[in-house]
Amino acid sequence: MPAFSFRLIATDGAARCGEIVTPHGAVATPAFMPVGTQATVKGLLPEAVRATGADILLGNTYHLMLRPGAERVAALGGLHKFMNWPHAILTDSGGFQVMSLAGLRKIEEKAVTFRSHLDGALVELSPERAIEIQGLFGADIAMQLDECVKLPAPHAELERAMQLSLRWAERSKRAFEGAAPGRALFGIVQGGDDPKLRLASARALVDMGFDGYAIGGLAVGETPEVMRATIEDVAPALPAERPRYLMGVGTPADLLQAVARGVDMFDCVLPTRNGRHGLAFTRRGPVALKNARHADDQRPLDPESSCPAARDYSRAYLHHLIKAGEMLGAVLLTMVNLAYYQELMAAARSAVAAGQFEDFRRKTCALWEQGDLPPR
Amino acid sequence: MPAFSFRLIATDGAARCGEIVTPHGAVATPAFMPVGTQATVKGLLPEAVRATGADILLGNTYHLMLRPGAERVAALGGLHKFMNWPHAILTDSGGFQVMSLAGLRKIEEKAVTFRSHLDGALVELSPERAIEIQGLFGADIAMQLDECVKLPAPHAELERAMQLSLRWAERSKRAFEGAAPGRALFGIVQGGDDPKLRLASARALVDMGFDGYAIGGLAVGETPEVMRATIEDVAPALPAERPRYLMGVGTPADLLQAVARGVDMFDCVLPTRNGRHGLAFTRRGPVALKNARHADDQRPLDPESSCPAARDYSRAYLHHLIKAGEMLGAVLLTMVNLAYYQELMAAARSAVAAGQFEDFRRKTCALWEQGDLPPR
Repeated sequence: MPAFSFRLIATDGAARCGEIVTPHGAVATPAFMPVGTQATVKGLLPEAVRATGADILLGNTYHLMLRPGAERVAALGGLHKFMNWPHAILTDSGGFQVMSLAGLRKIEEKAVTFRSHLDGALVELSPERAIEIQGLFGADIAMQLDECVKLPAPHAELERAMQLSLRWAERSKRAFEGAAPGRALFGIVQGGDDPKLRLASARALVDMGFDGYAIGGLAVGETPEVMRATIEDVAPALPAERPRYLMGVGTPADLLQAVARGVDMFDCVLPTRNGRHGLAFTRRGPVALKNARHADDQRPLDPESSCPAARDYSRAYLHHLIKAGEMLGAVLLTMVNLAYYQELMAAARSAVAAGQFEDFRRKTCALWEQGDLPPR
Repeated sequence: MPAFSFRLIATDGAARCGEIVTPHGAVATPAFMPVGTQATVKGLLPEAVRATGADILLGNTYHLMLRPGAERVAALGGLHKFMNWPHAILTDSGGFQVMSLAGLRKIEEKAVTFRSHLDGALVELSPERAIEIQGLFGADIAMQLDECVKLPAPHAELERAMQLSLRWAERSKRAFEGAAPGRALFGIVQGGDDPKLRLASARALVDMGFDGYAIGGLAVGETPEVMRATIEDVAPALPAERPRYLMGVGTPADLLQAVARGVDMFDCVLPTRNGRHGLAFTRRGPVALKNARHADDQRPLDPESSCPAARDYSRAYLHHLIKAGEMLGAVLLTMVNLAYYQELMAAARSAVAAGQFEDFRRKTCALWEQGDLPPR
């Protein structure tokens, strides 16, 4: 199994395209990672996820440590085997969901203690345990435990959480030393909307030295301008020869904005969650399939899509499935959306390689703004 | 497009194997028809349904006439195109679900009037309208409107409903005269648990002459013995050269009992509904995946299954998905169950052709009774 590596293939302004190699295959960047929270991308067979073009999935440590449990997954051969996904997997550290889902959180220097949202059990998650769990899963890319603060927040709070995250980064790195060869560990830049804190965080992490660097603590309440400015501040402070991962972001427009500023990796629940709720992402912008205007529309969502779900079913049928609450509606629109995100990333890679990223971004946005096909 | 026909290939005692040809392809019999209530087999892409081995689906007129509506489906090119299923479709007449789902039913000679369970609208369904609707769908096989009585019921009630169903059969046949060429219409034998009523119903229908004959009004509260006896009474009264369809039945054991008595076609929600609830049908009998004994079991459900879902995923993973309420659990177990039902029918066909049906049935039942693999 090849060891983790990253190779920059081309740049265009700040935008980059490259290739990550992991023990479970290569990942073309910029890359979008579908979210497989509970060891499944909701509703899709793993081969269907792969068919959308995904090279890598994200798994959620918080959910998986509580059910089915990290030691159990390890005994069953690891997360790849458990969920029948032979390609790359990145797992988060669990920190973000402890903050957003668990009850009775207590953050201390040593660890975060919380009550499971499933059965109320008291659970402790330390930086060392987060690394251990991700090792039990066999994640190709593990993330340090960090503390993510919702915005807006007082400066002192942002600084405290950023400093704690740095100390946890060091402990995570030490804990990772015994990890199986070839696996990677990413540090996470925190500091909220404060550029000085962000830079201090980035520099300290780079001094420690990680296989890749994530920008955390965004898409947590700030404006799009703050998100863009923060990426613009942080990305240049990160080493060019390491991948950069913007956590939990975002819309198709967010992705292109971030690629333009040098980001290589993304994950987000938007394409899957919105798909389940009847919203499709397309070349012509979002399409709400619940809308009655689709009820008699024989046309597919997008005949030029790479995805059979966008080509082989009428809007009328998708509308019917969503209105009737049928699982197949969620399944088809999840496919459509994941395929669209992957197409967007593939097109971004080609545009960077051709030195035409800004032109591509402008044309793509223009088509989104033009909007969906007029009703027939 | 070929016209409807039925060819008997072999018999073994009362058991038969044969082939139905429809405008949308051939159907090997004995055949199991997965239920696609709202123009979808819940959770499965049409190609996944096909991959389980299905030649024909059942669509529910009651549901589809209310949503998306028969005229709308016709305007969209018919049910095959609407749901992207190019193979054969049989639709029921809507009568059964009017009785079981709708509010405020009123059965009169002319028609049944009911309130839609979706929006309370008052809807009338006559034998003629049921045929018209099924024509709008483009069903390869249409069913007459009948009245199905829950058992036990007074003799007078059974006789009244049976006679009404016969009069509706005549009207259905007349209404079907203008149908698109090649499509088929089946009559439905009623009469509850009364052998004399059943025989009278069968004889009258055969006198009218249908493309095939269904046995309705079973699996509605009677004992397994009554079901078997009724099939045993009715089947010999039906012409050998026409397919025989036992409606709404049943368990794998029910299917083999009925095949032994000369039935050719089945539909039932058991494999799909039970799959969604975590129950798998296997060669070794039913397996409840929710059971904690599977939590650490690396073994697949059945390594000898024709279905990847039964081979490529551990019991531990299926257990996890079902416990976590994940859609993929429902999807995988629906595949497992439909594939098992299709395997069972394929094996029955081979056994009949080889003149070994009783031997096959005995061995199959013995394996069911032996039960699931012991825990490791």
